Amino acid sequence: MPSLSPAVAEIRLAVRTALADLPPGATVLVALSGGADSLALAAAVAFEAPKGDIRMLSLTVDHGLQTGSDAVASAVRERAAALGFDARIARVDVAGAGGPEAAARDARYAALRDAATDARATAVLLGHTLDDQAETVLLGLARGSGAASLQGMAPARTDEEGLRWMRPLLGVRRETTRAAAAGLDVWDDPHNIDPRFARVRVRERVLPVLEAELGPGIAEALARTAEQLREDAEAFDEMIHETIEDIVEHAEAGISVSVAALAANPAALRNRIIRLVVDSEFGVSLTRTQTLEVARLATDWTGQGPIDLPGCTARRHGGRVIFTAR
Amino acid sequence: MPSLSPAVAEIRLAVRTALADLPPGATVLVALSGGADSLALAAAVAFEAPKGDIRMLSLTVDHGLQTGSDAVASAVRERAAALGFDARIARVDVAGAGGPEAAARDARYAALRDAATDARATAVLLGHTLDDQAETVLLGLARGSGAASLQGMAPARTDEEGLRWMRPLLGVRRETTRAAAAGLDVWDDPHNIDPRFARVRVRERVLPVLEAELGPGIAEALARTAEQLREDAEAFDEMIHETIEDIVEHAEAGISVSVAALAANPAALRNRIIRLVVDSEFGVSLTRTQTLEVARLATDWTGQGPIDLPGCTARRHGGRVIFTAR
Repeated sequence: MPSLSPAVAEIRLAVRTALADLPPGATVLVALSGGADSLALAAAVAFEAPKGDIRMLSLTVDHGLQTGSDAVASAVRERAAALGFDARIARVDVAGAGGPEAAARDARYAALRDAATDARATAVLLGHTLDDQAETVLLGLARGSGAASLQGMAPARTDEEGLRWMRPLLGVRRETTRAAAAGLDVWDDPHNIDPRFARVRVRERVLPVLEAELGPGIAEALARTAEQLREDAEAFDEMIHETIEDIVEHAEAGISVSVAALAANPAALRNRIIRLVVDSEFGVSLTRTQTLEVARLATDWTGQGPIDLPGCTARRHGGRVIFTAR
Repeated sequence: MPSLSPAVAEIRLAVRTALADLPPGATVLVALSGGADSLALAAAVAFEAPKGDIRMLSLTVDHGLQTGSDAVASAVRERAAALGFDARIARVDVAGAGGPEAAARDARYAALRDAATDARATAVLLGHTLDDQAETVLLGLARGSGAASLQGMAPARTDEEGLRWMRPLLGVRRETTRAAAAGLDVWDDPHNIDPRFARVRVRERVLPVLEAELGPGIAEALARTAEQLREDAEAFDEMIHETIEDIVEHAEAGISVSVAALAANPAALRNRIIRLVVDSEFGVSLTRTQTLEVARLATDWTGQGPIDLPGCTARRHGGRVIFTAR
């Protein structure tokens, strides 16, 4: 009898730890593309879930973007069924703004949400690895919107409908999933090496240069950074939600914030409050430059304003910064 | 009469804004290597300082690391004198831990501090540009110690002796300083293209790949990220310093922190408090893994511990986490 491979053992441990957070009898839905990451995840779930009396579904999303994608999805579905999954396929239409990657992702997540709701699943398990996290951080760095764009993907979060989205392999290297999935008939998506996609360029060209020039361990360093920045963001969110109701007032056609409260907070909180208020009231994401201009209405007011922003106007009046729809 | 170049105008504006923070009659010390950045800075200071009744010194540091460095320093000193500076040279010995870049930097900053103190200068002006900031962020990213390593260089800070360290050009691109310094007899330090230095590899090999693969604007995005993360770090520092005295107690051969206070704080503050306490008491910088292990003494205690750390031991006793010298 062959001994258990260290790669398989590492992935099973990660999955076991994640499943331990779920109640017995829960249903989990594994997002299964058929690549090494999600197949290794599915195999580990198939091993661990029965021990916790957890019901297993899998969903393979056919994006319909490549010829023969239906045959690929069917083959992946059969592999999942052979592993013991209630294995399903969802065919989606990919269309929308934000480029092909964003549209495919939105369609995929919507299909997963629908399937999880239909099956009354407690959690969706996603196969993202540490390497995916590092790529996400670098893509965020290129956007330059600070901690928010560098915190990467959450290891676990609960959405508004109470559905948990979990990434048990976020601390596992991609090469470990490859080793664990050897012999599982992995499907290599040609999109994963298509340099039209920014993520592929980060993986194939940017990370290797960073590793070569700055030494090994870059992927781990990026993942560690994401973890700490996520922690920071959660702390700021908590602080803001403790005070926001006290400092904001809703008015006809707008919303206002206390100048004294804005000025008393450190810049990190002040700027986040301004962005949150404008985003929640007008659905607009302010740039840093716009945010700082609004902040000066509270901290450096010499009579300036009103300030025209996308979707609204900000002005100072009577000890408050008032945002009004345009 | 030739019109003023936009590059010169941009740098003069940046310098004028920085000098406006200083009292009339102040003395500033410009750190002058003779490269484009510091020469452009010096030329702008020479133009702006007299308007604010500000006395101008320059210091050129001869690190003695290259043959003929004394002749270079003398030539640079003469250029500064011609611009109207009280122009000086400091010869330093570069030796120390942390590699040649760190040792040279430490020696240079010590020489600047000494010269500023001798001349009773209010501020030291450094020629770092937006590109230097972007490089610093990428170097920090490779270390992976989160927000602390990504916040780059401060645009202005006051040290323990009350000396201000200012970087007026931190929002200016390097190509702008090159354009402004054209005709000023720039000295190109061969170390600036020597790939033994990590910073040079970031500049010459990493940033160009990032620009090519993720689009232009990477340097600006990195600098913007640094600015926001610095703001975040300042907010956390402020919060910690408001509470630290209430939750820490000094004891014989150690220090202790209230478990209740640690547990009540969000992880971002809890982990920073632990790192700060250990660093200030034992001069040790904990890794993230060590920090999280200590945090679990407060948040997930099941009787574990004591934990051996570099320089100290942490254990839980009587509602406190106690750190004792080893």
